[in-house]
Amino acid sequence: MKNKIIPPISTPVVDEKANQEKLKFNIEKMNATKVGGYLVLGSNGESVLLTENEKLMVIETVRQYASSEKILVVGTAEESTRGTITLTKKAAELGADYALIGNPNYFKAAMTTPNLYDHYVAVAEASTIPVIPYNSPGFTGINMGPDLIGKLSGHPNICGVKDGTGNMAQLAAFRRLGGEDFLIFTGNAPTFLAALFVGVSGGMMPIANIHPDLWVGMMENYYKGNIAEARRMEAILVPMTSVIMKYGAGGIKAAMDILGYYGGPPLMPLKAPSREGIDEIRSALDKVEEGMGA
Amino acid sequence: MKNKIIPPISTPVVDEKANQEKLKFNIEKMNATKVGGYLVLGSNGESVLLTENEKLMVIETVRQYASSEKILVVGTAEESTRGTITLTKKAAELGADYALIGNPNYFKAAMTTPNLYDHYVAVAEASTIPVIPYNSPGFTGINMGPDLIGKLSGHPNICGVKDGTGNMAQLAAFRRLGGEDFLIFTGNAPTFLAALFVGVSGGMMPIANIHPDLWVGMMENYYKGNIAEARRMEAILVPMTSVIMKYGAGGIKAAMDILGYYGGPPLMPLKAPSREGIDEIRSALDKVEEGMGA
Amino acid sequence: MKNKIIPPISTPVVDEKANQEKLKFNIEKMNATKVGGYLVLGSNGESVLLTENEKLMVIETVRQYASSEKILVVGTAEESTRGTITLTKKAAELGADYALIGNPNYFKAAMTTPNLYDHYVAVAEASTIPVIPYNSPGFTGINMGPDLIGKLSGHPNICGVKDGTGNMAQLAAFRRLGGEDFLIFTGNAPTFLAALFVGVSGGMMPIANIHPDLWVGMMENYYKGNIAEARRMEAILVPMTSVIMKYGAGGIKAAMDILGYYGGPPLMPLKAPSREGIDEIRSALDKVEEGMGA
Amino acid sequence: MKNKIIPPISTPVVDEKANQEKLKFNIEKMNATKVGGYLVLGSNGESVLLTENEKLMVIETVRQYASSEKILVVGTAEESTRGTITLTKKAAELGADYALIGNPNYFKAAMTTPNLYDHYVAVAEASTIPVIPYNSPGFTGINMGPDLIGKLSGHPNICGVKDGTGNMAQLAAFRRLGGEDFLIFTGNAPTFLAALFVGVSGGMMPIANIHPDLWVGMMENYYKGNIAEARRMEAILVPMTSVIMKYGAGGIKAAMDILGYYGGPPLMPLKAPSREGIDEIRSALDKVEEGMGA
Repeated sequence: MKNKIIPPISTPVVDEKANQEKLKFNIEKMNATKVGGYLVLGSNGESVLLTENEKLMVIETVRQYASSEKILVVGTAEESTRGTITLTKKAAELGADYALIGNPNYFKAAMTTPNLYDHYVAVAEASTIPVIPYNSPGFTGINMGPDLIGKLSGHPNICGVKDGTGNMAQLAAFRRLGGEDFLIFTGNAPTFLAALFVGVSGGMMPIANIHPDLWVGMMENYYKGNIAEARRMEAILVPMTSVIMKYGAGGIKAAMDILGYYGGPPLMPLKAPSREGIDEIRSALDKVEEGMGA
Repeated sequence: MKNKIIPPISTPVVDEKANQEKLKFNIEKMNATKVGGYLVLGSNGESVLLTENEKLMVIETVRQYASSEKILVVGTAEESTRGTITLTKKAAELGADYALIGNPNYFKAAMTTPNLYDHYVAVAEASTIPVIPYNSPGFTGINMGPDLIGKLSGHPNICGVKDGTGNMAQLAAFRRLGGEDFLIFTGNAPTFLAALFVGVSGGMMPIANIHPDLWVGMMENYYKGNIAEARRMEAILVPMTSVIMKYGAGGIKAAMDILGYYGGPPLMPLKAPSREGIDEIRSALDKVEEGMGA
Repeated sequence: MKNKIIPPISTPVVDEKANQEKLKFNIEKMNATKVGGYLVLGSNGESVLLTENEKLMVIETVRQYASSEKILVVGTAEESTRGTITLTKKAAELGADYALIGNPNYFKAAMTTPNLYDHYVAVAEASTIPVIPYNSPGFTGINMGPDLIGKLSGHPNICGVKDGTGNMAQLAAFRRLGGEDFLIFTGNAPTFLAALFVGVSGGMMPIANIHPDLWVGMMENYYKGNIAEARRMEAILVPMTSVIMKYGAGGIKAAMDILGYYGGPPLMPLKAPSREGIDEIRSALDKVEEGMGA
Repeated sequence: MKNKIIPPISTPVVDEKANQEKLKFNIEKMNATKVGGYLVLGSNGESVLLTENEKLMVIETVRQYASSEKILVVGTAEESTRGTITLTKKAAELGADYALIGNPNYFKAAMTTPNLYDHYVAVAEASTIPVIPYNSPGFTGINMGPDLIGKLSGHPNICGVKDGTGNMAQLAAFRRLGGEDFLIFTGNAPTFLAALFVGVSGGMMPIANIHPDLWVGMMENYYKGNIAEARRMEAILVPMTSVIMKYGAGGIKAAMDILGYYGGPPLMPLKAPSREGIDEIRSALDKVEEGMGA
């Protein structure tokens, strides 16, 4: 699972419901790209807005239509420990390779390092597939730092971490504490190249849904030592990222619509970008084509 | 529904499951107090940790055993608009008088004032019972201020607001913008007396589960103009609050155990207070008895 | 010094220098109002932007021209303990009645409760006039809460506190810990009425420079038990406050210009409001006249 | 001025006063190291705690005793624009090569991008030496991001930026916007290696006062392509950094005392580390010796 980009895919929505046909369409189209796998039911997949049945449908559908070499990572976090365990087991039964688990966050004051440690260990003990804690303070308001992740990295069923902060000191500490085999994925696109230098295993950035082969290409250039070319691609991809990510999951979907995938609207309370927003996204995508053509 | 204290009750848990017998026991005991009603499935009720079936059981049970004069407010928020609507309708069918609805908060950056306005209007339009937005930045990381609440107060099915901030400027603005009939409840105990002066309609503080008649008594003293006596009671109740609320929902439950209710443990990832914590809570409760006996 | 409003006065600036003539003009005009005294060299007085000579000139000038019944409070904080002591002593020699001392804040991580305690005690020991710590997290990024202020209130030369937070739980705790004779001033205008209910000694709000007799009148109505009239005045004065305080020290100066005082520009990097800002301020002041005339 | 480490040196204090003899001693000792120059009157130099005379003494002394190849950067920020200009001019007269200028921060709400832009341009216009804005939100509470720095980079007398955030996305954006000749220094040691990869010009980290030749050595290894050796050194130096920087300027001074420089105490309200803190620092320094000896 090293040296891979695994985008957190969107959940297609039609009439305020998750839609299996559109999901199949997107997966079959993305199978032709060089992504290493699919992360389903992540933040960008609007996981917290889905019903339980929709979640199970999404897992099954992606497992069924993903080409065989693609890894399947499933977001299985709920606020309660028991709910997280239940969903993790179901995901494993449906063929998930890894469970990605964001931390509980509603009761912020109670989410101390010892309480989070116990939560993750309880989930890892109960899970039949390897567990990857997901640190995303932008959504949760809580940072899981080296103290916690370093300790969790010693558990036999906790195989890595996804970190959305873009904090290189933290990623470097995860690497030092977790050792060479610990999987570290970043979710932060503007620092992806720096994160590769610091030693991450790969990327799980929402924006990697957009032109996935360019993101994989940038990574491959880095690994081949073509740093200048990697940096040239970064200078093209990061401004696109800034524009699209302003609109969150709805921005990714709007860009997918433009690029021939099914994007569609997000679930309420999320909103699709306005007409001006879509024009801004289109213009950002045009600049990528110009930049890459040059 | 004015001049009332409506505590957000705990959800009793046995063997990591919500327990109907213990809930019945607590409600029947609390019926004998002067609380104006019950708020079920609030933050203190560990709502985000419950399954859907448990939520429905809690509503039904409290409706069945609450004495007839007690108002029933039900927390029905989910992250998605459609999920919130579904649960609000079920709560209404089960006899809820009001729906209390915390704001979606996972996608923090997208929870702009217009998006939250549309969310609440969609819920209020679909609901057959009056809707009360719940502002609790300590849990959600988002403040719903006068701009949003003032505008929502104009909707015919949005009858009030619960605010957990203890921000008097905000409460005063809610009163000015919402008018005299808009219901304003505070969830912040250390500023409850000041909030009454500012014009709130009542209190929905978790700590009001602990010695509810003292909290009602303090409020009644305020309304009768016995400000010195109200303040004397505040000086006794606020230090108790500081101690117990450090331990959150588990602290309330520990204090309930001491006072003859069923408290029990919270659901994981929450934890019961340690032995030292329980001793500290017991000592804080003893000081209240001393203070009130004087 | 109880039951008084002591506005933090502006420092008039001409040609990017503090100007004595304009200061004399303002003080002589404000002597005719019911303010209880003057706070010079506060945040609104742009203290951190003045040279040492300007600071001394401001103290001397206000002492000379203030009518005899007006109390003189002087802001004497510097980042260093020794610098604060030196300026406090000079202020005392020039006739200050009290020294108001904001906390050092550049080295935020080092400004722990014990370090701030030692700082304030060192200043209080060296000062020949009573010392008033000033808590203003909006400027300093640090809150001095009940733990610190309660402990400082026991020092014989620390006579009170100014608090800019508008946090009623904190003000109530200061009163409980400091006792009845401890001076507590609020700097937060939108919660001034609530703060009087909670037991503050008076107000030191920048906006009290604007229509000071209305602010004093609102306070007097509160003390006489005319709560409805006090609240009516609050509903007129708070919206004005919101508009003017958006522009900070420059907004206060612009409003002073409109009302016949010398306002003028603030020192750079502060800016005077734009033309649109001044129009907005003028309109807010007009609404006060309409409201009070009604 | 590229590819250099320029430590922000400590200001030696004896009897609560800046001390010239000790400063001379330290500079003469540090002249023998491979540092590229000295940053005086930075945060670590306790600049905000010094009198004006002390500041001038420090500049003169370092200019006099620094060996000729060492660059002299002087921190000349005050809160006011005019004060910053005055001190910048004096520093230039005393031989400073560059002025490093932290942003005004007391009036946080007024420090908008346009106001900060005007401030920096006014200073750059008035200064006879090149100006380097210094971004340090940990001290100031304000981030100066790519919008502001990119625009400032176009001014002929603004030659670079020092950034203390350790935010690689920001540093990369500075490089893209400022061009290849724009000087970018990081003040964040745990991300120094990543920052070199991102393209910074060098380091101005306080911890570089401690074993400066190891920091220079790590940088040189990076430039020579000895990444594994650079990373091995980072794994030794970063844990030391975490321990010492907990104690801020006082921690640096304590480590200097251990290593044969004059450290001494910081000025109040800062404090020297406790006895336990000094033991912890000594132990961290011992580990560096062990690690480097290996």
